[in-house]
Amino acid sequence: MAYNQPTPEVIEKLKSIAPGRVYTGADIKEDYGHDEMPVVEKQYLPAVVVEVLTTEEVSAICKLCYENDIPIVPRGAGTGLSGGCVATLGGVIIDTTKMNKILGYDLPNFVVRVQPGVLVNDLAEDAAAHGVAYPPEPGEKFATVGGNVATNAGGMKAVKYGCTRDYVRAMTVVLPDGQVMKFGAEVAKTSTGYNLVHLMIGSEGTLGIITELSLKVVSPMSKTASFLALFPNLESCIECASKIRLAGLAPQSIEYMDRYTVTSIEKYMDKVSYPAEVDGEPIGAYLLVAFDTATEEEMDTIMENAAETFVDNGAMDVMVYDTPESIRTVWSVRANAMESISANHPVSDECDIVLPIPEMPAYIKYANELGKEMNLGVRNCGHAGDGNVHVNTYPLDADCDLAKFMADSDEFLKKLYDYATEHGGQMSGEHGIGYAKAPYLVQTLGPDVIALMRRIKLAFDPKGLLNPGKVLPLE
Amino acid sequence: MAYNQPTPEVIEKLKSIAPGRVYTGADIKEDYGHDEMPVVEKQYLPAVVVEVLTTEEVSAICKLCYENDIPIVPRGAGTGLSGGCVATLGGVIIDTTKMNKILGYDLPNFVVRVQPGVLVNDLAEDAAAHGVAYPPEPGEKFATVGGNVATNAGGMKAVKYGCTRDYVRAMTVVLPDGQVMKFGAEVAKTSTGYNLVHLMIGSEGTLGIITELSLKVVSPMSKTASFLALFPNLESCIECASKIRLAGLAPQSIEYMDRYTVTSIEKYMDKVSYPAEVDGEPIGAYLLVAFDTATEEEMDTIMENAAETFVDNGAMDVMVYDTPESIRTVWSVRANAMESISANHPVSDECDIVLPIPEMPAYIKYANELGKEMNLGVRNCGHAGDGNVHVNTYPLDADCDLAKFMADSDEFLKKLYDYATEHGGQMSGEHGIGYAKAPYLVQTLGPDVIALMRRIKLAFDPKGLLNPGKVLPLE
Repeated sequence: MAYNQPTPEVIEKLKSIAPGRVYTGADIKEDYGHDEMPVVEKQYLPAVVVEVLTTEEVSAICKLCYENDIPIVPRGAGTGLSGGCVATLGGVIIDTTKMNKILGYDLPNFVVRVQPGVLVNDLAEDAAAHGVAYPPEPGEKFATVGGNVATNAGGMKAVKYGCTRDYVRAMTVVLPDGQVMKFGAEVAKTSTGYNLVHLMIGSEGTLGIITELSLKVVSPMSKTASFLALFPNLESCIECASKIRLAGLAPQSIEYMDRYTVTSIEKYMDKVSYPAEVDGEPIGAYLLVAFDTATEEEMDTIMENAAETFVDNGAMDVMVYDTPESIRTVWSVRANAMESISANHPVSDECDIVLPIPEMPAYIKYANELGKEMNLGVRNCGHAGDGNVHVNTYPLDADCDLAKFMADSDEFLKKLYDYATEHGGQMSGEHGIGYAKAPYLVQTLGPDVIALMRRIKLAFDPKGLLNPGKVLPLE
Repeated sequence: MAYNQPTPEVIEKLKSIAPGRVYTGADIKEDYGHDEMPVVEKQYLPAVVVEVLTTEEVSAICKLCYENDIPIVPRGAGTGLSGGCVATLGGVIIDTTKMNKILGYDLPNFVVRVQPGVLVNDLAEDAAAHGVAYPPEPGEKFATVGGNVATNAGGMKAVKYGCTRDYVRAMTVVLPDGQVMKFGAEVAKTSTGYNLVHLMIGSEGTLGIITELSLKVVSPMSKTASFLALFPNLESCIECASKIRLAGLAPQSIEYMDRYTVTSIEKYMDKVSYPAEVDGEPIGAYLLVAFDTATEEEMDTIMENAAETFVDNGAMDVMVYDTPESIRTVWSVRANAMESISANHPVSDECDIVLPIPEMPAYIKYANELGKEMNLGVRNCGHAGDGNVHVNTYPLDADCDLAKFMADSDEFLKKLYDYATEHGGQMSGEHGIGYAKAPYLVQTLGPDVIALMRRIKLAFDPKGLLNPGKVLPLE
């Protein structure tokens, strides 16, 4: 496929489609050249950015680009971690951040209708004001809902509430040639033909551009409490995480951190929050668990049962937090996990492999040992309830050359992805593939599945113009 | 596409692939000519039935059929309601019912691995014996799990536990040309390329043949209790159903029945189980609600809150059932809803439209009035928690000609489907499309979405040999 860049004539037509909202050359902000991927070798600026307001504008822009073989890249808040919204081949970025209206609620049907540029945080607050909850809460709260759907974003509550996928009922989609389609309906379940909604979710803007979403909301929980359970090692910690769930306790969040991670974060925060030992025995790993319930009585029941279940399943001790202030403090350690890495290591790389839960400890050990062997710094934390491990790596030598680190990191990640594949895991639990991880996808899924995915891509986008090189690498 | 039938040479090759398990001519049981669709104009027997035991056999059969342009129809227990597993063009039926092994559990990972021919009922019992639960419980418990995945089967517990879709993590799939692929992984969440698992779910055997499944299990609930809430009319009954859920009470099942349905069922059962009036005021509709919890204490809390919430939201009265015997009795009325129709009306037709929940009462009224207008019998019941209404229609005249009834029913269904489309609904909540409903799918989704679905079908099945004419009508 030969891609064109917008000509002056095309740019004039774009300006007539979206008057006052078309940017070129020096008027394009530097931010469009990247997302929040920690390691960036190169900035990729588009030829044109168009801030869109309506489905009709998106359709007209796509039609124009399609007729002229110009790459199209949809983009939300740009908070992704795999380069999914970056214009690696130039062309036109369709910026949906100004399509940020919450269009309305149908509460007896548990649905809220939104434009894709609404921020997840704004939606969560607005839903709460309407007496319901929109549970998906990815680490990055200033992402757009459209971006969350495009990557099937997860977050800490996924263990109880599922990922973004579980909240999408219907969507308006513009295909690369400008066709506008409605996928799904505002219904609770459906067996009505191929499920195009689910195919779109997690397709990272490579199949169509989402311009409206109907999302499920749920009844809110009013009570929360948290536990910090202390373990001699990571194995017993992860094992207990499954036991808690098998006991029917249904935690909202269940996060693990090893002792090294906690000390690193506490050093960054300049504050010691977690105990280091129990009766002289060193703590190896922490399980941070939140519960939420609709009533005080239900919470009382859970709190009684949970503490016992932790201790019965290997916890050296367990601490309870049931005031807003104490809950905030105990979670602030986990909340600073990523920042404490980026603050100390301006150059780093990350992956978010997801594994069968019992495979987590061995994988983390493998990653730590591989890092030592390769002279790379390694930190990890993640979701003990769903097997999703965030591993960050960074050069131990502060003067390390970027190109050398990227080559090392590439080798490191390749080995981790191979390990994950061999142990029943997948590359990404919630961050997606983008362009940065696309070559590894071929390695992990194999040529036959990739060929099938390419045929599906062609069914939506026969010219390959929509977000080219994302998910599936360029051929 | 010109389809061939198996030649004697092909049949010999099939016999060498599956020795002793290949049936032709008079050896093919009559049952293969249909599923459990209530109205059947015609039997469609295949040329060959092969009972398969392994993925390798399925692959070899597909490869052989693919080379010879022979239609392939995968089939489980044949309990579908839309003709999805019927060989309308002859060819080869691949019968998976002998692939009925439960292969094993990974409890800390909440996964059970099964062959597709396992019966849902057997899986539910086996999971319980392992201390976990497989919640999907469609009305037909002697369906295979593979068939449930193929149609995304729902059932009464869907309001709390979701549909079959929500329990599938990974699958082994044979493509029509014989390629064997693994989709997904035994992980709790994933953002790793296009989600082929979700595309397969509900595709009714038209994209690939599922030969192994990894399914999610959950921690079991030990306590159950049920309520029968009595309402003056259907509108207040459905409205209360949403209020119960908005109050955070999370019912396991929430079924509605109108007075006419209840009297019809009671007549069939020859037993009056439900009250007809409250303090002299006639009851118009019933809400039958089940709750399940992990502990006695949680159930106590719910029972206190639920009774109050019913009465606060329009219930004339509410009755509580908390012993196994009383729960069985109150639910036996709902359980006999379908049988009471088929027993009295050997010829009938059905549809299972799903709507936004608040649209249910008006839709039911429309269906009843349309039936009256067209001189058709109409009965309905369904899932008040998810907008899924089962409407059955039958000739009022016992001597009615089958062809006349089918023409009338066709007109009736067309109007219902149009109504559903106009009111934000979809054709099927849980039964699927099969061949019987395929023409209506074009009417409701429109030519552009159907064309896209056809292109997706081609990505999997370029020769159109796999279950042709199902979901998408023959061109």
